[in-house]
Amino acid sequence: MSNLPLYPDKLVLVTNDDGIAAPGFRELVKMASRYATVIGVAPSRPQSGMSSAITVGEALRVNQAEDIDGARIFSVNGTPVDCVKLALHTILPRVPDFVLSGINHGSNAGNSIIYSGTMGAVLEGCANKIPSVGFSLLHHSLKADFSLSMSFVDSIFANVLEKGLPEGICLNVNIPAKVVPKGVRACRAAKGHWSEEYARYLDPMGNPFFILTGKYISDEPESAETDLYWLDREYISVVPATHDQTATSWLKDATKRFDQ
Amino acid sequence: MSNLPLYPDKLVLVTNDDGIAAPGFRELVKMASRYATVIGVAPSRPQSGMSSAITVGEALRVNQAEDIDGARIFSVNGTPVDCVKLALHTILPRVPDFVLSGINHGSNAGNSIIYSGTMGAVLEGCANKIPSVGFSLLHHSLKADFSLSMSFVDSIFANVLEKGLPEGICLNVNIPAKVVPKGVRACRAAKGHWSEEYARYLDPMGNPFFILTGKYISDEPESAETDLYWLDREYISVVPATHDQTATSWLKDATKRFDQ
Repeated sequence: MSNLPLYPDKLVLVTNDDGIAAPGFRELVKMASRYATVIGVAPSRPQSGMSSAITVGEALRVNQAEDIDGARIFSVNGTPVDCVKLALHTILPRVPDFVLSGINHGSNAGNSIIYSGTMGAVLEGCANKIPSVGFSLLHHSLKADFSLSMSFVDSIFANVLEKGLPEGICLNVNIPAKVVPKGVRACRAAKGHWSEEYARYLDPMGNPFFILTGKYISDEPESAETDLYWLDREYISVVPATHDQTATSWLKDATKRFDQ
Repeated sequence: MSNLPLYPDKLVLVTNDDGIAAPGFRELVKMASRYATVIGVAPSRPQSGMSSAITVGEALRVNQAEDIDGARIFSVNGTPVDCVKLALHTILPRVPDFVLSGINHGSNAGNSIIYSGTMGAVLEGCANKIPSVGFSLLHHSLKADFSLSMSFVDSIFANVLEKGLPEGICLNVNIPAKVVPKGVRACRAAKGHWSEEYARYLDPMGNPFFILTGKYISDEPESAETDLYWLDREYISVVPATHDQTATSWLKDATKRFDQ
């Protein structure tokens, strides 16, 4: 059994996209359990790159797994967003006070937020008006060392726990790998592009197939406004994000152009 | 063979999320082929709800299918975003001038853009700086009648073809079903929430499983700024959207809160 958390009345949903067995999920559950009552609901299998995908027309099942530090843990045979939706619908005793996602094994900086299952879960929490934070370590290995940065993860969550987040705002936190971070910087997602995105192969019949690869390259590497700038300099980046994708800045022009 | 399009030098990529066999895809290819050179690249199977998901670590294959009105058509065994990425990487002779997605069989109004595979493809085009538009008809049936609204789809595309879109702006166009639309309104996505999201079943062993259902309910049904308002009144909604999810309005506050 774990010790009683600081705020046992606060309920935190922890999820991820690497699946229930990922060490980063376990780290995040343990961290949050020091502060609040935690229930973990994670995909039964890895769901990297699943974005905000939802499972349509197929049966979703919820299975209880082994506790982590006293936190009850469930798996869902679906996407990260399925996990959040089913947690809200049927697993949790009430709407949670916070949704945490991660710690992802790999970067979600730049425009990776579009594809990220980690952030898909966070955006789902945000759309449900729940303060939500995604954490990602820039290291794909399942043997990644989270200990170097856990005090920062801790302090960012403590900050959100204490002060909340405005409705419609969530956080995309990325953490440099293999270093003790030099600090934390709030910033925006770097604009950029993907380099060579696919490796090409030939199957035994001589037919081609493709596997996703590539690397995100900042188009503005010298801009201190961006997450990739600070991550390159061994800082943790905190990007405030929103689930609302309306480009309100262009709404007036759109009215002139399209109303009929 | 079709007649020569109005602008044969313009190249349009058409994709969707209902899969290559969907009537809405065929309609969109036909419409665009009157204006420009079209190449269609669609998922080999339905991909509704796939958002901006990408296929990670699995083999993607490209297969040529039967032409539609002289347009070459390819299928990809992946998501809508996989289709756009592989089109750009290996199928198209050059970066296309436009990406069109749809016509989706079902609504992508309100916050459905988050989950929409149709709009996932559009946001991918937008992230690649290509003017991109998604079309959705508020009718799930594969027998939906597109003819009532095709003149509007046509004029919206003609407008984008002529004037382009600003970088980072794409369009989410939703079309009321079973009526001749009364007109077109540019607007923002309605804020709202999903009602009862899952149906619960028991399998033959007595174990529960869940299938996604539910309905999006506007929290602001009387706001003429929103897409659901205009769709309810039989207008086509045009929502300018962006792939950039940074909440820049909250960046200063985030700096005060998190920088260390």
